Amino acid sequence: MIERLGSSTICFSKKPSIVGFSGIAGKKEAQGPLKDDFDKIIYDMHVGQDTWEKAESTLQREALSIAMQKAKCSASDVDFLFAGDLLNQCISSSYGLKDFSIPYLGQYGACSTMVQGLIMASVMVESGASHISACVTSSHFCSAERQYRFPLDYGGQRPQSSQWTVTGAGCCVVSDEDMKLCPKVCKATVGKIVDLGVNDQNNMGAAMAPAAADTLLRFFRDTATKPLDYDMIYTGDLGKIGSALLHELLQKEGVDITRNHKDCGVMIFDCKDADVHAGGSGCGCCGSVLGGHILKNIEEKKLRNVLVMATGALLSPTSVQQNETIPSIAHLVNIVI
Amino acid sequence: MIERLGSSTICFSKKPSIVGFSGIAGKKEAQGPLKDDFDKIIYDMHVGQDTWEKAESTLQREALSIAMQKAKCSASDVDFLFAGDLLNQCISSSYGLKDFSIPYLGQYGACSTMVQGLIMASVMVESGASHISACVTSSHFCSAERQYRFPLDYGGQRPQSSQWTVTGAGCCVVSDEDMKLCPKVCKATVGKIVDLGVNDQNNMGAAMAPAAADTLLRFFRDTATKPLDYDMIYTGDLGKIGSALLHELLQKEGVDITRNHKDCGVMIFDCKDADVHAGGSGCGCCGSVLGGHILKNIEEKKLRNVLVMATGALLSPTSVQQNETIPSIAHLVNIVI
Repeated sequence: MIERLGSSTICFSKKPSIVGFSGIAGKKEAQGPLKDDFDKIIYDMHVGQDTWEKAESTLQREALSIAMQKAKCSASDVDFLFAGDLLNQCISSSYGLKDFSIPYLGQYGACSTMVQGLIMASVMVESGASHISACVTSSHFCSAERQYRFPLDYGGQRPQSSQWTVTGAGCCVVSDEDMKLCPKVCKATVGKIVDLGVNDQNNMGAAMAPAAADTLLRFFRDTATKPLDYDMIYTGDLGKIGSALLHELLQKEGVDITRNHKDCGVMIFDCKDADVHAGGSGCGCCGSVLGGHILKNIEEKKLRNVLVMATGALLSPTSVQQNETIPSIAHLVNIVI
Repeated sequence: MIERLGSSTICFSKKPSIVGFSGIAGKKEAQGPLKDDFDKIIYDMHVGQDTWEKAESTLQREALSIAMQKAKCSASDVDFLFAGDLLNQCISSSYGLKDFSIPYLGQYGACSTMVQGLIMASVMVESGASHISACVTSSHFCSAERQYRFPLDYGGQRPQSSQWTVTGAGCCVVSDEDMKLCPKVCKATVGKIVDLGVNDQNNMGAAMAPAAADTLLRFFRDTATKPLDYDMIYTGDLGKIGSALLHELLQKEGVDITRNHKDCGVMIFDCKDADVHAGGSGCGCCGSVLGGHILKNIEEKKLRNVLVMATGALLSPTSVQQNETIPSIAHLVNIVI
């Protein structure tokens, strides 16, 4: 049974166990500090496929396969699969996952999809609708770049505030079995769409920071907790600029997360890599860092009580062309062991 | 608490009540036989906006507002909102619904989104995570046509097997209050992605029929019921060709639904309207027919035990250009009063 806490936080009383998880990443990501955490590194951006879209689909398949293997389950044991990605009509997910033949619920939360999927999988498991559910997401630099920005061959210049789409994928397999050695989903706060009028698609961090602040403040209020009650607060892909803005927005409300906040977009790349500018982004950013790094640290009990909040910018190339502002969202989960 | 039935059906023991619902439609749809059922008819395809995308967003806003009004609730009473549409990155939903400030979970199920959202809203309500949740979806002929096919001004010829994207939207507000006079969500079967190799984007009915057959057969097996146990079996938007193929596929398995099957894509348009060819499609097809017609008939007790199965083709213009086949899905709910 799920209980409501305060205005908008939900509390999983049985605490679904994350019995399998995976994070896979590309070559550039493997040059960063998290190299040894990823379950698999893809050195060929095409992953042996003839299109980038199919390459990205392969990342999702790999992520789900590895997570199921670690969970010691097969596709027929998984009752529901939540997946989504950045490509139009979420084709990396639908084409990548169709052969598993698992009842499928497509999600769209832009770069917040990993946590959105984890919340939904946990709800299915806790409600009795499912014994085992899974969530998976991905992004790929090449498929995203040409869809959202320019053809790669054009070699367009990118401003310093822009972020680099992570080539990677992440997956969590969630179970109703009470597994003492596994990370557990304890609470969740679903994001509201927040739009403070930022319309620079090369500064997603600025667009997403207000949504992140809104969700985090609601969570702290609903649970009557404060930042230092948690070992670490991870955000999805605010990057350097978005992280600084989040700190500023929270400080105005008297909340200081600077002592235990890390951003997946900042963590994933080598800080000397000038190309990535403000940091990483894409569904695969929080996906691969959660599945590859954060959950490993929780399983090894280096961290025991963690907040993970993935952020997403809900724009499209059409909305950018129409000079619209960028609505954003942030979903949060509290994971414990 | 939700219980599992058979391999993949879930059963809502408290049966969440659909306390408010709406269906709105465009001018062409209002020339069809369901005219008097829609809550609102939009005669101006631009709905007073300067782009079709914004026009479609307006449909979603209207649908949610009308359904909340009928449910006698305000946006602050709604705990979770599930929404999605056909546009890239689901912008009709995110831009259309952002001002309601309701915790938001973006869905992507192509034309199956209405039923996918209704299942998720029901799960949230039944699990205790929510008192009231809502789902909304839309499609718009003009925004879909130019994104998926050709610029409207080009005036491209369409083959007889093609379907006409419905301009419309639908919404359901689901509550944990036991309302005797309201339709109730009783059971649900989540679809698997099925791809039998159809790659003609002008024959979506053929692509989707196998997914519809798969879901319906699983539901009948899990519940040990047969077609005539239900007053009516509605499919989302298979159109004429897809419906005939569904009948054929089911007959091979010894299941005959021809006596009580109707398809929203066939129902919504005037059968003398030659332009619509094989029938209607789009998220707004099942959306407006469920919210405008089907639920009204259940509330008036003309129907007491109904299956509604929305179908979706998970293709994208990119996958079509890359000559991929069309993976499809169908989600089913059993609604009773």
